[in-house]
Amino acid sequence: MPHPDDALPDPSFEHTRSLFQLPEGVVYLDGNSLGALPAAVPAAIADVVSRQWGESLIAGWNDHQWIKLPTVVGERIASLVGAAPGQLICCDSISVNLFKLLATALQLRPGRSVILSEVGNFPTDLYIAEGLQALLGGERCELRQVTAQELPDALTEDVAVLMLTEVNFRSGARHDMAALTQAAHRVGALALWDLAHSAGALDVQLDACKVDMAVGCGYKFLHGGPGAPAFLYLAQRHHDQVAQPLCGWLGHAAPFGFENSYRPAAGIHCYLSGTPSILGMKAMEAALDVFHTLSMRDVERRTASLTQSFISALTALPQSREFTVVTPAIAAQRGSQVSIRHPQAYAITQALIAQQIIPDFRAPDILRFGIAPLYTREEELQRAAQALAAILESGQYRQPRFQQRKEVT
Amino acid sequence: MPHPDDALPDPSFEHTRSLFQLPEGVVYLDGNSLGALPAAVPAAIADVVSRQWGESLIAGWNDHQWIKLPTVVGERIASLVGAAPGQLICCDSISVNLFKLLATALQLRPGRSVILSEVGNFPTDLYIAEGLQALLGGERCELRQVTAQELPDALTEDVAVLMLTEVNFRSGARHDMAALTQAAHRVGALALWDLAHSAGALDVQLDACKVDMAVGCGYKFLHGGPGAPAFLYLAQRHHDQVAQPLCGWLGHAAPFGFENSYRPAAGIHCYLSGTPSILGMKAMEAALDVFHTLSMRDVERRTASLTQSFISALTALPQSREFTVVTPAIAAQRGSQVSIRHPQAYAITQALIAQQIIPDFRAPDILRFGIAPLYTREEELQRAAQALAAILESGQYRQPRFQQRKEVT
Repeated sequence: MPHPDDALPDPSFEHTRSLFQLPEGVVYLDGNSLGALPAAVPAAIADVVSRQWGESLIAGWNDHQWIKLPTVVGERIASLVGAAPGQLICCDSISVNLFKLLATALQLRPGRSVILSEVGNFPTDLYIAEGLQALLGGERCELRQVTAQELPDALTEDVAVLMLTEVNFRSGARHDMAALTQAAHRVGALALWDLAHSAGALDVQLDACKVDMAVGCGYKFLHGGPGAPAFLYLAQRHHDQVAQPLCGWLGHAAPFGFENSYRPAAGIHCYLSGTPSILGMKAMEAALDVFHTLSMRDVERRTASLTQSFISALTALPQSREFTVVTPAIAAQRGSQVSIRHPQAYAITQALIAQQIIPDFRAPDILRFGIAPLYTREEELQRAAQALAAILESGQYRQPRFQQRKEVT
Repeated sequence: MPHPDDALPDPSFEHTRSLFQLPEGVVYLDGNSLGALPAAVPAAIADVVSRQWGESLIAGWNDHQWIKLPTVVGERIASLVGAAPGQLICCDSISVNLFKLLATALQLRPGRSVILSEVGNFPTDLYIAEGLQALLGGERCELRQVTAQELPDALTEDVAVLMLTEVNFRSGARHDMAALTQAAHRVGALALWDLAHSAGALDVQLDACKVDMAVGCGYKFLHGGPGAPAFLYLAQRHHDQVAQPLCGWLGHAAPFGFENSYRPAAGIHCYLSGTPSILGMKAMEAALDVFHTLSMRDVERRTASLTQSFISALTALPQSREFTVVTPAIAAQRGSQVSIRHPQAYAITQALIAQQIIPDFRAPDILRFGIAPLYTREEELQRAAQALAAILESGQYRQPRFQQRKEVT
């Protein structure tokens, strides 16, 4: 008699599901906003608080190697995004890390002032570029936004850096990182990629794509918890030609020398600024254990298979004419989410949440289903599709309780 | 028969000691580097990890008000440093927060370029000013360092901002915040204070001293844990005239509107950048409960009394001619540490640590005894003084095991 597991498409990912603590009865499809809790994290955090901080006190920096965490955790992330050692550290937020790298980009491309990006890129990326522009003035730094289609023509000789997010947070569309990086290089520009919606879900190949710079997020598909530290990548070939403006004491060549003048640490370490949150770093470190033994190629296959299966389920619904699937149908062109457009997307999201199916809403009319390759199950996606069908069919999303906007405050 | 507690100088601080978990037998005199663990923190952190993150998942941002933590925790810190509501937030690191405020200072004082600081200020403060100078060029931003004695004369009409740390990390000397802020204002400069070694130990009065800007540290006398979030203060009168360059999505007027262009949030909130560490924030929030019912005036009195008592014990030692107490003898002129200078300071520190008495060493020849008003006991200071006497008397610090430098790696 066959074991019930034999029917599952990929038993190895059934194993990874067991590495997470997910609430009973909930279909969690918002891991692209905040990843679920890896089961190993509570014990790791209890240990760092009560034993490492409580008992070792200041000696924790050496005895428990807190001081090495940005590097140690960074290298583990590096192995998930195709980066050889020595090029990636875990620290600060995406916003702060982008500022460091954009300043570096302008320095590496003297005489060029343009940060080229895409209309609809994740807002913080655009805001930080605006902040640098306001600080330096438009002659030294200019943020230029074009549509995705206009990007090839917009790569002109005044572009210092092409700044893109690999997977669009609204549509789930995925850029061709290799091709766009090459296009940037052809005009002498650098390529900076935001991996917020890629790292941990896709087989990112930073080195192979010859990417110059990257940032990414710890709390989505890397499962590091709310406000987890972000990461920063700078290709080896640019090291030691650069400085960065947020040059805090931890990025000094001798942080405990307490010298009066800044001397940058060698390599990627000069991108450290202030003291990192050790609790955040330790949660991240424990969370990354869920990737143990996995190849990112298999993870990306799993992502492609689940998103394909969900798109098929959605398009097969009798109610499918009421919404548009905005996520690309070709697997290589999408990330790990499926987004649909519907004028009542907000209310439909609320109606799904009332049934313990948790997608999210992005203004003005996008409903996002985030798919976490390590814990989302095929049958959960079928349940979500059926629930969506029933909500559309019954029109229950028109009820006032689903229409009323709850502001995030 | 009198209760044994009757002999204690201040029974209320015996109560606060019980709010910390300190390892048995250890005399911890390095709370000015990393504060001890408040007993309430482990449960608060277990709750935010397992229940808030694990069960509420993305809804935690609203249901558990994570989104409000920078403000909520900020206001609690504000009440400890003499700041009325609406002027202080908890976020990022001191380094990153200094960068935001120094950029703001240059913007508020157009035509002025000088950041005036003190030789021997905490290195990260100087490094960040150097970073801003390198980014903007010397004509727009110039870090000028003078000695403390030279400060009054160095306050010239080209100074945009006077940037000082209230309590010097090496000597423990405390500046006169009111007088120096007034002196800065007399020449039209702003005053920016680093409260790293003040907040939680001294009765800081930011508003009353008419301070313009301040930053401070969460992991020293505020007991927020390793790498706890820092804080940032900007006086109300400067709000809404300013922008800051690290303008990430959380500082946007409508962070969940995902607009293409940055619009700063009102007031102090525009100083938020990226997503904060919720674990770090929650540890900080729970840690601050130790200040419940305390007045900072009493805390500063306790600080003055303990440091006085320790200085007296040190100067009364027969071996006192072998070292110099570099911390000022006048209580109003010192913070919550006592530093001595000895050519063998490193080895003496190691010999004390071998006896479970934990001070720290600052190159080249400073031995620092940090005194935490909420948990350091009078008798611990007496034990530390006696141990120092015995180590000096016996010359045991000359043993190779104490001489050998352990590098923080």
